[in-house]
Amino acid sequence: MKPNTFGDRFCVTSFGESHGVGLGCVIDGCPAGLTWNQEILQNNLNRRRPGSLDIVTARNEKEIPEVISGVFEGKTLGTPIAVWVRNTDQKSSDYSQIKKKPRAGHADDMWKMKFGFSDHRGGGRSSGRETVSRVIAGSVAQMLMKRVSPKTKVFGWIESIGEMSSDEKEVQALLKNKKKQDKAETEIFRFYGKQRNETMEMLKQAKLNGESYGAVLKIGILNPPPSLGEPVFRKFKSDLAQAMMSVGATSGFDFGAGFTAAKVPGTKFHSTKHPETGPGTYGGIRGGITTGEDIFFRVAVKPTSSILDVAKKGRHDPCIGIRALSVFESMAYLVLADQYLMAKSNRLE
Amino acid sequence: MKPNTFGDRFCVTSFGESHGVGLGCVIDGCPAGLTWNQEILQNNLNRRRPGSLDIVTARNEKEIPEVISGVFEGKTLGTPIAVWVRNTDQKSSDYSQIKKKPRAGHADDMWKMKFGFSDHRGGGRSSGRETVSRVIAGSVAQMLMKRVSPKTKVFGWIESIGEMSSDEKEVQALLKNKKKQDKAETEIFRFYGKQRNETMEMLKQAKLNGESYGAVLKIGILNPPPSLGEPVFRKFKSDLAQAMMSVGATSGFDFGAGFTAAKVPGTKFHSTKHPETGPGTYGGIRGGITTGEDIFFRVAVKPTSSILDVAKKGRHDPCIGIRALSVFESMAYLVLADQYLMAKSNRLE
Amino acid sequence: MKPNTFGDRFCVTSFGESHGVGLGCVIDGCPAGLTWNQEILQNNLNRRRPGSLDIVTARNEKEIPEVISGVFEGKTLGTPIAVWVRNTDQKSSDYSQIKKKPRAGHADDMWKMKFGFSDHRGGGRSSGRETVSRVIAGSVAQMLMKRVSPKTKVFGWIESIGEMSSDEKEVQALLKNKKKQDKAETEIFRFYGKQRNETMEMLKQAKLNGESYGAVLKIGILNPPPSLGEPVFRKFKSDLAQAMMSVGATSGFDFGAGFTAAKVPGTKFHSTKHPETGPGTYGGIRGGITTGEDIFFRVAVKPTSSILDVAKKGRHDPCIGIRALSVFESMAYLVLADQYLMAKSNRLE
Amino acid sequence: MKPNTFGDRFCVTSFGESHGVGLGCVIDGCPAGLTWNQEILQNNLNRRRPGSLDIVTARNEKEIPEVISGVFEGKTLGTPIAVWVRNTDQKSSDYSQIKKKPRAGHADDMWKMKFGFSDHRGGGRSSGRETVSRVIAGSVAQMLMKRVSPKTKVFGWIESIGEMSSDEKEVQALLKNKKKQDKAETEIFRFYGKQRNETMEMLKQAKLNGESYGAVLKIGILNPPPSLGEPVFRKFKSDLAQAMMSVGATSGFDFGAGFTAAKVPGTKFHSTKHPETGPGTYGGIRGGITTGEDIFFRVAVKPTSSILDVAKKGRHDPCIGIRALSVFESMAYLVLADQYLMAKSNRLE
Repeated sequence: MKPNTFGDRFCVTSFGESHGVGLGCVIDGCPAGLTWNQEILQNNLNRRRPGSLDIVTARNEKEIPEVISGVFEGKTLGTPIAVWVRNTDQKSSDYSQIKKKPRAGHADDMWKMKFGFSDHRGGGRSSGRETVSRVIAGSVAQMLMKRVSPKTKVFGWIESIGEMSSDEKEVQALLKNKKKQDKAETEIFRFYGKQRNETMEMLKQAKLNGESYGAVLKIGILNPPPSLGEPVFRKFKSDLAQAMMSVGATSGFDFGAGFTAAKVPGTKFHSTKHPETGPGTYGGIRGGITTGEDIFFRVAVKPTSSILDVAKKGRHDPCIGIRALSVFESMAYLVLADQYLMAKSNRLE
Repeated sequence: MKPNTFGDRFCVTSFGESHGVGLGCVIDGCPAGLTWNQEILQNNLNRRRPGSLDIVTARNEKEIPEVISGVFEGKTLGTPIAVWVRNTDQKSSDYSQIKKKPRAGHADDMWKMKFGFSDHRGGGRSSGRETVSRVIAGSVAQMLMKRVSPKTKVFGWIESIGEMSSDEKEVQALLKNKKKQDKAETEIFRFYGKQRNETMEMLKQAKLNGESYGAVLKIGILNPPPSLGEPVFRKFKSDLAQAMMSVGATSGFDFGAGFTAAKVPGTKFHSTKHPETGPGTYGGIRGGITTGEDIFFRVAVKPTSSILDVAKKGRHDPCIGIRALSVFESMAYLVLADQYLMAKSNRLE
Repeated sequence: MKPNTFGDRFCVTSFGESHGVGLGCVIDGCPAGLTWNQEILQNNLNRRRPGSLDIVTARNEKEIPEVISGVFEGKTLGTPIAVWVRNTDQKSSDYSQIKKKPRAGHADDMWKMKFGFSDHRGGGRSSGRETVSRVIAGSVAQMLMKRVSPKTKVFGWIESIGEMSSDEKEVQALLKNKKKQDKAETEIFRFYGKQRNETMEMLKQAKLNGESYGAVLKIGILNPPPSLGEPVFRKFKSDLAQAMMSVGATSGFDFGAGFTAAKVPGTKFHSTKHPETGPGTYGGIRGGITTGEDIFFRVAVKPTSSILDVAKKGRHDPCIGIRALSVFESMAYLVLADQYLMAKSNRLE
Repeated sequence: MKPNTFGDRFCVTSFGESHGVGLGCVIDGCPAGLTWNQEILQNNLNRRRPGSLDIVTARNEKEIPEVISGVFEGKTLGTPIAVWVRNTDQKSSDYSQIKKKPRAGHADDMWKMKFGFSDHRGGGRSSGRETVSRVIAGSVAQMLMKRVSPKTKVFGWIESIGEMSSDEKEVQALLKNKKKQDKAETEIFRFYGKQRNETMEMLKQAKLNGESYGAVLKIGILNPPPSLGEPVFRKFKSDLAQAMMSVGATSGFDFGAGFTAAKVPGTKFHSTKHPETGPGTYGGIRGGITTGEDIFFRVAVKPTSSILDVAKKGRHDPCIGIRALSVFESMAYLVLADQYLMAKSNRLE
């Protein structure tokens, strides 16, 4: 795997800097004959794009994707799919101070140390804007999965922001109600339960006061195809971990019983009858291979670092976890698509 | 990355089934001229091997590695290094029942579903025995790191087993005392503090009673080289996550502030002056790139599944986390070696 | 290696269809700090582009490359370099007949058979226009080689077109005269010796009469860095062969003594004193590794297939070998750059 | 592609030195459920092994392959297949002189220059003995092709040795006679026609006199599956070229009309009616994709370099092309298997 390439079969190469001409990706390995679904792509980009709500950054990118190659008369050709978005709202002058003094918590100085030379404008490629390429690619992966495994769906929400939490029961009810779930697809602030309004208020204040919050996000892969995941180094869970931890702001990943699995005695943990563990014990993955049951994983996201410091003229998200949901879902689709194609050669027929 | 290959430059291909002829690996990409250090290899294998203590499984493999190629007159040749161990204590007859009825919590049935045909004897390649290849490869990576970055050391210990915990302060003191740390290198049961004896007793009982426990392991990468980690998909943290989550029993990974980072407000989190966060806030990795500071990461390990069921005649570990430490350390060395070689082409000179 | 990716370290992903929006490539792995040289790129594109001479196709593409990412303030950033050209002269209507009846000698029907669905317009991605991505990437590789090994130069010429041949002595004299060689850099029709005018006349007639000719091209890699080439599957010669044979029109490759090596007895062949063989016996590559001596290789190119048939309204090259020289040189630079970066990890220091 | 790895899906990693413990390979990606065919493997090894005839080297390796992993109860498991042979007849003392003075035409000094340190015994990994790993891997690929495309067969012969030539008509007759062809499978000296005896005599003399000869080998891929070959960099012809040119002694490759394609005018070449060109014009590959027609390619092999010099005490082949046939056939099977698996994801269904 190359630094800027993700996946072995559904193989995505990402490019672009935050304040350069644009960002995009090339997908090599998507089978021919897949119907292009612009709606999926645009919805995902909208959810990720800044400026969509008053609780996210004001940097306003329209995110109009241009398909350069690989799609003809509404279908994929089996050739590389190149898609990009032009940068439109880069105010490089905002970042002139950074050249002299790198921002705390950012990677500006790290890139300079590593490469000896870097693009100081808004983080260059270390900017969160890099994730737009992931959402483009993940959307194509979503189109593929929709076709080859129509019941499979990736749906993420906010488990907690700082000390505030979603109501897990409400979410699980939502997941079981197709109509509600479909509606929730286009929803940007996926925080459910009593603390929702209070949390929104907290975030508005944070935006004004230069405060920020981390988040724990929970993502469900509903009805995944069984038998995905390649032993021993490409287990489904290790690909998921790689995918999620490759996003800038993440500091933790677990799935199924996760860190709590370490606390429960084996006789309880492995008993399928036990109320505390039950069907979801293995988290839908056994031996690194999907069982076909729902998979739920969690990602820890750090508080945004663009707060009150040299970057104060820059624009910041009070909680990057809100917009990042679309990114993590996209990465999950990339893992699904790659593993789906990989599993095609497990058997002779 | 192929299913059974790890790494892009220090590239390891693993092979072998639990009850086949043997297991091993081929390392392609190790530079020429590296002095072979059999002591490192044997110590790591000893720590991983079953039968070493009365609190681990009784399956007794001698683990005598044979070097087939790539090493000549005590030095690496720059050619593929092939090393393997012959299986000696496989009692396939123990597993005859499994053919009919797969064990709960194991992957026996998953492999059969996936490949249509599988080796039922002790899990075949889904057995934990697969990790012997990882330890061999990781040991060579350790030899490389010892040479190119002599101060870098990977040291892991048990943070907790079930509800019992090591004393973090005692561990940190150990890490600062070179003499004690050197001695601890060959130690198998790395559980420190007051609860040590009680925990050992608990494990002995578990072994008798068919009980098992999960664990949280904590691993330090001390004095890592700075500037390792390739944006955007090969961040140091995402490679670590991939490496750790590719081990069979893992269900969670975090580093630095990990999941707690999601709880602390940004003004606290990003303040280097704040007592709660301080120097280790970013966990030694920023923008996916190592800063040169110590890195600490944690891995959640599930309770062993080989307990009281059809496999009762098989042999089991009351807590797989004890022997797994050597495996996780090896995986960390593999990430270091691969990223070290990769960083060689970041700049022109 | 993915279908549309070339190289392991200097890793190029190509995209684009002949009559789509545009074509280009993403280069992952080019070190940071390399000075961008637009002149090299534009010269190579000019030599490849149609419409440059009256003995090549009239399809007139301006070939203005747009750099999307990876270059900032005139230097490479170490991030993916994305460059593309927009298609400007695609007359899709010319190709409407092809949809019904595929052209002889073209790959239109093969792609349809393979992918079940294809872009019939001018061959889509099977068109020779695909090579524009190769020239872009090869030009960046040339910039890299110019910096890290300034004396290394790739220079190709036409050994023969049909039955007409260049004068080898004249070429060798040219290669030894720096001034003449520099001037020849921008030359498009690199056919030397007495038969030059006669050959040009032959090609003009062929263009009018719907005739076409194949060619044998000879390319020199002058003063290559020694020690390039990775045993056993990435020998310098096998990478060269892969690179050249991946171009559409090629049907043969040899280097050094080539096919004649099979005729000479070993005592002659391996005698460095023998007049028939001499210094160039091994062709500058031994054991798959460059010796540092000049390397000369040859490529056989088939006669253009776009002649008098259903595609007659399309435009054709009487000999594709003329414009292809720039493509083969680019591929040679890609091999050099990739192998140069790969050799960086052969030794510990 | 790593230096010692061939293939993307049917992925072979080779290891071993000429005078080390042994040589072998690991195959990752072979589907589960394939019946193991030891006869195919042993026949191919026998044809490659030294000491089989009085016109090949006397170095006598028994070549008994040991299967370490990936095969259980006579079938492949879908896990890595590791197979190796132990070296038995290495007389290292024969090569003691080489340490001081490298042999002409060998790569001994090149490896030392490249890696700074090398195994001087009989060329180490630069020895032709390395090809035993290729034959092992190619034999497994042959088992796969036999199952998924039973009519496909790779059959190679000697077109010429020095100035002596096989009779092409006799060979084509042989290829059309199933019974004769089956018998020819185990034949080692595949030289057909009137000059056969004279050539054998010439080779016996050469062995006594320290002379050697090059060869042109011709290999047919009969009844290949159509639609193999991935545009643009993994064309079937470029993979073949890479595969063949990666073998030590090769200096040229062509297929179909090969270098002669460059001489024939397009109107003749592309006319399917023309007697000189006819059905085989495109050599069974169009647009880089197999048409399903027979493919014939040629490989030029240099005269053996182990003749009358410092290595005289070593043992030499008067014409390495004889034993190499099995190696080239194996490489062709590797290309077939890899491309076959790759083509599985071209379409949605």
